[in-house]
Amino acid sequence: MDLKEGFIAVDWGTTNRRAYRIDPSGACAQEFEDAKGILSVGAGEFPGAVAEIRTRLGDLPLLLAGMIGSNRGWVEAKYVACPAGIDDLAEALVWAGEREAIVPGVSYVGDGRADVMRGEEVQLLGAVVAGHVPRRALVCHPGTHNKWVHVDKSRIASFRTVMTGELFNLLKQHSILADLLGAEAEPGEAFERGVTHALENADLPAELFAVRARVLLGEARPEDAASYASGLLIGSDVRIGLSGLVPGDVFVMGSPKLTCLYAAAIRTAGREAIELDGEESFLAGIRKIAERISK
Amino acid sequence: MDLKEGFIAVDWGTTNRRAYRIDPSGACAQEFEDAKGILSVGAGEFPGAVAEIRTRLGDLPLLLAGMIGSNRGWVEAKYVACPAGIDDLAEALVWAGEREAIVPGVSYVGDGRADVMRGEEVQLLGAVVAGHVPRRALVCHPGTHNKWVHVDKSRIASFRTVMTGELFNLLKQHSILADLLGAEAEPGEAFERGVTHALENADLPAELFAVRARVLLGEARPEDAASYASGLLIGSDVRIGLSGLVPGDVFVMGSPKLTCLYAAAIRTAGREAIELDGEESFLAGIRKIAERISK
Repeated sequence: MDLKEGFIAVDWGTTNRRAYRIDPSGACAQEFEDAKGILSVGAGEFPGAVAEIRTRLGDLPLLLAGMIGSNRGWVEAKYVACPAGIDDLAEALVWAGEREAIVPGVSYVGDGRADVMRGEEVQLLGAVVAGHVPRRALVCHPGTHNKWVHVDKSRIASFRTVMTGELFNLLKQHSILADLLGAEAEPGEAFERGVTHALENADLPAELFAVRARVLLGEARPEDAASYASGLLIGSDVRIGLSGLVPGDVFVMGSPKLTCLYAAAIRTAGREAIELDGEESFLAGIRKIAERISK
Repeated sequence: MDLKEGFIAVDWGTTNRRAYRIDPSGACAQEFEDAKGILSVGAGEFPGAVAEIRTRLGDLPLLLAGMIGSNRGWVEAKYVACPAGIDDLAEALVWAGEREAIVPGVSYVGDGRADVMRGEEVQLLGAVVAGHVPRRALVCHPGTHNKWVHVDKSRIASFRTVMTGELFNLLKQHSILADLLGAEAEPGEAFERGVTHALENADLPAELFAVRARVLLGEARPEDAASYASGLLIGSDVRIGLSGLVPGDVFVMGSPKLTCLYAAAIRTAGREAIELDGEESFLAGIRKIAERISK
């Protein structure tokens, strides 16, 4: 693909998309974000949705990552098996057109487990490429589905998904706890209590119900419920994630609101947490893939 | 209350209600069930909804149990604290009218925990009254919110709620697993695998995501997903419930479809399970309360 005039990088998720025009120098010259995630694009409408990006950012080649490569997206890009490095992603690009390449996801099968990621791999390996994450590290990537990633020799060696964000949203939107979970979850005493409980007790589906019971019986304040429940969920997540065998600091990558909560929980569990910006890492990763395929 | 011509017992829940006409002899002469749970009855409409029951079953005194006594119900009946026996419920009845009494729920605060039940207490203590459950026992009462109940000296000594049924419904209706969880969960090899995993591993929010990943990667059959996920949830529930200190057989009470799954999981965990019919126990309990207040 001829990238000498630059290219457009798109992080295209389930519910939104972010597009960046990358200059020949590698700088991000222009960008936008909108709510046109893959679920809002009908089958057959992807060429139109892609044309729209070019209308806004220029008639350039496209590198697309995220759920756009899933079986509900534009063209399916099968998972690359672990261990997977940035070169493995570049080699397994799927071409939706002559100037449109889709980055594959990553899969892991081992230890009796099976797992998949799609979208996070560019950020994760981008952070390694950019030197923000060492060649061997434990990375935590919170979002709807948090990923605990063991990086080894600059590749994704294995990983584990915990559906914390989705569970919190389900409880907030549809459960008996809904009217208690409206507030924003924040670090602090109530969050910390939830984290500590979940690190010490493996009883998540019981303690979640107790969030409501405590309020009904005057044993907890309703305004603390969202932070406490968030602490329970993130604390359970951290207990699971840290039960692997990767020692040392934990690199936490994603949106600042979430990395802040996870970093607090990881520190409560006795490990150091280093917060990283996911967007910058995405751009580092996608630039590296662009280099590999540029001619 | 004058019950010499009999009475009407109502188990009035969130989404449905069951009403029974009880003869002076104690026999159930007539009954019906409909979808008029408390959430479908507006504030101020309860007298009408009660009159409707009398139109169908006769102009008799009413004993009402369940969510009808919650703060979203007709008249709030505060929780009776553990230890709570059938006499404690009878003494704490709340009178919505001269011929309409509401049975209170039960609360537990202790061991740093807090919990509530409303509706199950009549069934549980009814089973003790009827001799189906001994004076000291561990009872499991599955439903939207499963209750593990420690019965001692014929009273509810303590209990713990696990929101298994609600979590399964949330995942089935609204989550990324929705399209995999359409089938009915059934005992069998897939369910058993889920139970065994959850008894041995405290990683529920991770392994739930793996349900989808396994199917995507060809490591599991989509038609097994509902039973496997149900096994994970019920297995986690049983792991939590059996971590208490009540030895011996476990009495499992509720609808046969659910008690069958829980009994299988309890046996996998190495304990004997005895299945009981919840409806019969409800009637035994409510009759006993009627006796206490009859003059």
